[in-house]
Amino acid sequence: MKRRELISLIEKKKSFLCVGLDSDINKIPSHLLSEEDPVFEFNKAIIDSTLPFCVAYKPNLAFYESRGIKGLVSLKKTMDYLAQFKAECFTIADAKRGDIGNTSEQYAKAFLDPKGDFNFDSMTIAPYMGEDSVKPFTIYEDKWVILLALTSNKGANDFQFIEDKEGNPLFEKVLTKSQEWGNKENLMFVCGATQASMFTRIRELAPESFLLVPGVGAQGGSLEEVSKYGMTKDCGLLVNSSRAIIFADKTKDFAKVAGKEAKKVQEEMAAYMNLYMK
Amino acid sequence: MKRRELISLIEKKKSFLCVGLDSDINKIPSHLLSEEDPVFEFNKAIIDSTLPFCVAYKPNLAFYESRGIKGLVSLKKTMDYLAQFKAECFTIADAKRGDIGNTSEQYAKAFLDPKGDFNFDSMTIAPYMGEDSVKPFTIYEDKWVILLALTSNKGANDFQFIEDKEGNPLFEKVLTKSQEWGNKENLMFVCGATQASMFTRIRELAPESFLLVPGVGAQGGSLEEVSKYGMTKDCGLLVNSSRAIIFADKTKDFAKVAGKEAKKVQEEMAAYMNLYMK
Repeated sequence: MKRRELISLIEKKKSFLCVGLDSDINKIPSHLLSEEDPVFEFNKAIIDSTLPFCVAYKPNLAFYESRGIKGLVSLKKTMDYLAQFKAECFTIADAKRGDIGNTSEQYAKAFLDPKGDFNFDSMTIAPYMGEDSVKPFTIYEDKWVILLALTSNKGANDFQFIEDKEGNPLFEKVLTKSQEWGNKENLMFVCGATQASMFTRIRELAPESFLLVPGVGAQGGSLEEVSKYGMTKDCGLLVNSSRAIIFADKTKDFAKVAGKEAKKVQEEMAAYMNLYMK
Repeated sequence: MKRRELISLIEKKKSFLCVGLDSDINKIPSHLLSEEDPVFEFNKAIIDSTLPFCVAYKPNLAFYESRGIKGLVSLKKTMDYLAQFKAECFTIADAKRGDIGNTSEQYAKAFLDPKGDFNFDSMTIAPYMGEDSVKPFTIYEDKWVILLALTSNKGANDFQFIEDKEGNPLFEKVLTKSQEWGNKENLMFVCGATQASMFTRIRELAPESFLLVPGVGAQGGSLEEVSKYGMTKDCGLLVNSSRAIIFADKTKDFAKVAGKEAKKVQEEMAAYMNLYMK
């Protein structure tokens, strides 16, 4: 998906919600467990009920890989199902990959190649190994790298805030250096909502880049603060919510309730777009 | 596998060779392509011919994931095959994972859980997200985290050498900080052979930790320098070679030639163990 298509989608749906498909088989409604592929049935129902209110889906690969081959089959079925809604949602492989050049090429092929099993629009990448670990993910047309900059977890404090001699923290170096490897058409950044106070600084360093923002909901980040300090004239935000939407209800009504929760977030987002998108 | 078992294995085989199973389907001998699972047949033959000369196997997950579900099936078969040699080789999922705590738990389950599809002894982990992204990989008994510290690629220079105000580069902070999360019984470090001059410093910071050393062979690192500056009284090294061994020959003799190459490296290693293991 091209940047301008993503922006149109956000404007059309008045939403910058990304629904995280952290579809843990131990947390999905128990009545689904008798299905042949419970996780796929769960995802399908969640997609059907939330698609009008969100612009992106982000399967968290760990929850599929943890079930081995079977889990990857559920993921493939989910991506095949999403293929029919290609123009209506952006897809993110939350994979946190990154390796030496020839290996990153293979990871890019795994998740971004249109001829592959998954054909995501984008994938999350860890920056530790630098340029040649990131660049191979930028070679597919209209596909995106989403690079970890400032994460939403406690461990973010261990390395991401280490300052160099000029006082620049590591996550800022990642934000600036990586813009030599990609641009606002193919490079986004992960910036956690639990760090909303940092968004003013992040926008100085990456004024037009899209930011994928986890940490709203279960992790405690504020959607209003993220919008206030992080939004650009093109929106420039994809805010993820996983557990608070997909596991809002565990009964046979789970999909309906997930849809309602997504709608609530979408309405809040529409209000913030009116206020802060300029 | 416990640390003392790994050390015994190294002493018994007089080898600290790890064979990297970067089994790219486009590089394996073409006569295998008519097999039902060419990559598994390739791995099986490579394992049979190299097992006497190496102490570890490291499938590089990217080369399996890039083939989608089919690739993961080849990986599972490879791990099932290796299960019979459990006491004769250490296994490494070269996965470079790492995410927030609840997600890292799932990645650990995917690759380390004895009840899972793969049941590796260890996996490589990226440190960027800090403590809660790493610790979940230490919960399985006798399983190991292999944390990226100093990598062998050019991009290592982008962030890993950034010095803090006291002049400590990032990779050194990773080496020291992470030893609060694990210990020499469950935590190793990736330290690239292309950076052999750094091994003296690395040993000051991690005197007894095992180091997984990529970059010998195709990437240009020197086995002698790594041994001279990196070896401890327990050896403390696993040196990986992938392409130089597994793709040494593309004819029907590929496995025999790979075995010969592995034996050559093993003999060089035995000599360095005599010289430097003290």
